[in-house]
Amino acid sequence: MEDKLKKLKKIVGDAFELQRIAAVLDWDQQVGMPVAAAAGRARQTSLIVSLAHEKRTSAELGELLQVLVTEMENLDPDSDDYCLIKLVAREYERHTKVPAEYVAEFSHLTSLAHSKWESALAGSDFLIFKDSLEKIFRMCREYTDFFAPYEHVYDPLLDEFEPGMKTAELIAVFDKIRPQQVELIREIMARPVPDQSCLRHEFAAGRQWQLSTAAAAAIGYDFSRGRLDSVVHPFTTTFNLNDVRITSSVHTGNLNSLSSTIHEAGHAIYEQNISPRLENTPLATGVSLGMHESQSRLWENIIGRSYHFLRFFYPQIQDAFPELKTVPLDEFYRAYNTVKPGFIRIHADEATYNLHIMLRFELEVAMLEGSLAVADLPEAWNAKMKEYFGIIPPDDALGCLQDVHWSAGLIGYFPTYALGNLIAAQLWKVCREKYGSLDKAIACGRFDELRVWLSENIHCHGSKFESPELLRRITGGGIDPEIYMKYLRGKYSEIYGL
Amino acid sequence: MEDKLKKLKKIVGDAFELQRIAAVLDWDQQVGMPVAAAAGRARQTSLIVSLAHEKRTSAELGELLQVLVTEMENLDPDSDDYCLIKLVAREYERHTKVPAEYVAEFSHLTSLAHSKWESALAGSDFLIFKDSLEKIFRMCREYTDFFAPYEHVYDPLLDEFEPGMKTAELIAVFDKIRPQQVELIREIMARPVPDQSCLRHEFAAGRQWQLSTAAAAAIGYDFSRGRLDSVVHPFTTTFNLNDVRITSSVHTGNLNSLSSTIHEAGHAIYEQNISPRLENTPLATGVSLGMHESQSRLWENIIGRSYHFLRFFYPQIQDAFPELKTVPLDEFYRAYNTVKPGFIRIHADEATYNLHIMLRFELEVAMLEGSLAVADLPEAWNAKMKEYFGIIPPDDALGCLQDVHWSAGLIGYFPTYALGNLIAAQLWKVCREKYGSLDKAIACGRFDELRVWLSENIHCHGSKFESPELLRRITGGGIDPEIYMKYLRGKYSEIYGL
Repeated sequence: MEDKLKKLKKIVGDAFELQRIAAVLDWDQQVGMPVAAAAGRARQTSLIVSLAHEKRTSAELGELLQVLVTEMENLDPDSDDYCLIKLVAREYERHTKVPAEYVAEFSHLTSLAHSKWESALAGSDFLIFKDSLEKIFRMCREYTDFFAPYEHVYDPLLDEFEPGMKTAELIAVFDKIRPQQVELIREIMARPVPDQSCLRHEFAAGRQWQLSTAAAAAIGYDFSRGRLDSVVHPFTTTFNLNDVRITSSVHTGNLNSLSSTIHEAGHAIYEQNISPRLENTPLATGVSLGMHESQSRLWENIIGRSYHFLRFFYPQIQDAFPELKTVPLDEFYRAYNTVKPGFIRIHADEATYNLHIMLRFELEVAMLEGSLAVADLPEAWNAKMKEYFGIIPPDDALGCLQDVHWSAGLIGYFPTYALGNLIAAQLWKVCREKYGSLDKAIACGRFDELRVWLSENIHCHGSKFESPELLRRITGGGIDPEIYMKYLRGKYSEIYGL
Repeated sequence: MEDKLKKLKKIVGDAFELQRIAAVLDWDQQVGMPVAAAAGRARQTSLIVSLAHEKRTSAELGELLQVLVTEMENLDPDSDDYCLIKLVAREYERHTKVPAEYVAEFSHLTSLAHSKWESALAGSDFLIFKDSLEKIFRMCREYTDFFAPYEHVYDPLLDEFEPGMKTAELIAVFDKIRPQQVELIREIMARPVPDQSCLRHEFAAGRQWQLSTAAAAAIGYDFSRGRLDSVVHPFTTTFNLNDVRITSSVHTGNLNSLSSTIHEAGHAIYEQNISPRLENTPLATGVSLGMHESQSRLWENIIGRSYHFLRFFYPQIQDAFPELKTVPLDEFYRAYNTVKPGFIRIHADEATYNLHIMLRFELEVAMLEGSLAVADLPEAWNAKMKEYFGIIPPDDALGCLQDVHWSAGLIGYFPTYALGNLIAAQLWKVCREKYGSLDKAIACGRFDELRVWLSENIHCHGSKFESPELLRRITGGGIDPEIYMKYLRGKYSEIYGL
């Protein structure tokens, strides 16, 4: 077994490193590659991806797994080796169930769809994108066939991003929070709007970078094992556990770079604190998009937008932007947490964010099932916007064309953003049950208890345990939307005097 | 044949792209990777290199070559396909003659030797490095055995960096220029030293970057298909023909970044102007280190340090550094071209540079042949320094430990620097025979004639023709050291009034 395990580790370790090399190529492309180099870079990325795919689906790996999956029963189910074999077996099944021709065709389709989507967005003309999107949903439906039988047609897609999570559970969770979030927004909208004038300044870019850097470092992002760069669409990427890079984008018309950087630092702190024992294996990465998002949103929202965090950090913001010296903390805090139903998901506040997700989830499930024709998407989108937010986008660029995900074939991805919010609140509750409110520590800029607790309970495990299992180990149960709703209602009751 | 050629192109094209991906990993490491990430990055680089090696030495490639090498006789010897098959056959032979175990052992040895060398350099203690260097020369000798019989034991090593060049020719060339350069320096030293006070200012880093950027753009480096970044040891690297990056390093105590950036831009202009037809094949790169160096040094020295270039560019330097406004062009030109025998190769002026190379060449040949014991290197080094420059390094850090090359196992590499100088002068002569002196154009900042001529005669061909063949096509002959000596003596006679 020892020898077979060693061989397996070599194959999947190499595939994993190839994936990380592709991440380097992608980071470079987004951070500073000359535009003219795109075709050459695409060739290199596709070569690396196909080499990784070869290794991941190799017959040799299949043969090793056949033996190891039987023999693993002798291992401690909490051991690294057991978890590795389990993960590799699951991924091998997923990778080999999908024919190579399908993968190539889907990749070709989405690369064309992406440019169609770009044109459609630029001209706010859904028709340009319609055919591509129809094909994407048709192929996604085909994809689910490879995994039949399933409980729900959406399950195989969701499983790619949130292994172990079922659509039925997701629907049950969303059914619980939807009416509560709609009602919360209704109540908030009935209250006076906070004064937001303090956020309507020009905020110099250099100062914003300094603040972002200071905030990321304060919460525990280790700059000696990473770096912060400027990009158009911020992301976090891991080249190895000692090189986890974050990116941000600064616009002088607002202060958004601060929370955006804290968000990415949250992702990066997860990856930086994975146990070095797991390095160079597929376990050396965050376990799911939902769990990853719980980390970014815990730091961005529950911590970074909290009153106590601003007690600590607002003086630094004021030092950077002296025009805020006359604005009291309370006023800034309320302005910084203003709720306003809007068209664009990525600009949404905490109170409205999940509704943007549910809207997308419901529409993508309906299009996958065929109960909604892709041609009718804009109308359906706008109807739901009216229902949830009371507003209708003036055009599709501000409506159903705003997100890149569907054009990239990422169906099943959106719900993980909402799961991240819910899980974050649950983790926060457990941590505070252990350490008390932590308000004082946070107001002094001390985040160690929280960060170390997260590292010991989540980060260090990498992908050893599927997200639901990890959550069960920490909370004793599954997703509990009431905890998030309690957090949300508590926060806004205080701000808006509900 | 068509089908076999297609298969061959796929294999060597992939290997070539893998090599370029390794270049991305290396660039990132030198430009901005966190130090802590070195071990993780080394794993990735070695994975990529071994995948490239697998492809380059695959049995499938060998079988394809067996057929294609016969059938290529039907092709036009100037055609891309003929040149490709020829190059691939040559490299396949080289790569397969060396056993994989040797490659692994040598790579292991040099990675250890590198850290030994770093310690030795830091403490200026040759003894720390001695054993490693002995092993390196022993293994290089072993390497030459794989290629026996040869005319000269140094030939197989030289061939790696300067394909087609023989040691005998190199010795003959060096024997011609050595006494002339020694004599030239002697004459120069007998003359009054130019006033160099104008170069002893603090030159702000930001201004130096602006000047470097302006100079690189002026001579024709295309920033839309590349970029300039800051590193410790400057280099040029090609990710694809539309992404050729240069690097530089700025020290506020001198203006060296200017010529260093022009040097790298010279390398990059070569790569940027390779015919796009050759892209994604091993022909899409400069043909040899010597030919590459001819490009960098032509731009850096023959152009960049010329009086006429400074007529164009000195006003920009003065604008950047107003303290130079009172320094006349003539004075700056002489200061910028001062000859001073020194210990360090990379700081050497044009008149002394080749002697540094000959010294290293003679010593590495002697150590390879065994006529010089590695243990006696410091003594031999210092004796030659005395003989050629009349000075003796106070310690080995300023002597035989100064260069990284030997620690990296790069034996046979140094001569290409000198070849670059000689070839540059020959190319410059031919180009001026066609266009006239070009002095006026250069003084106006117009470099198109030279650049286009270089592109049409050298760059566009990539690696289609070996360096000696390419030089023959342009000049009608081989390396002619008299042309370089004439250039050198002419330039310094005027400056020093010899």
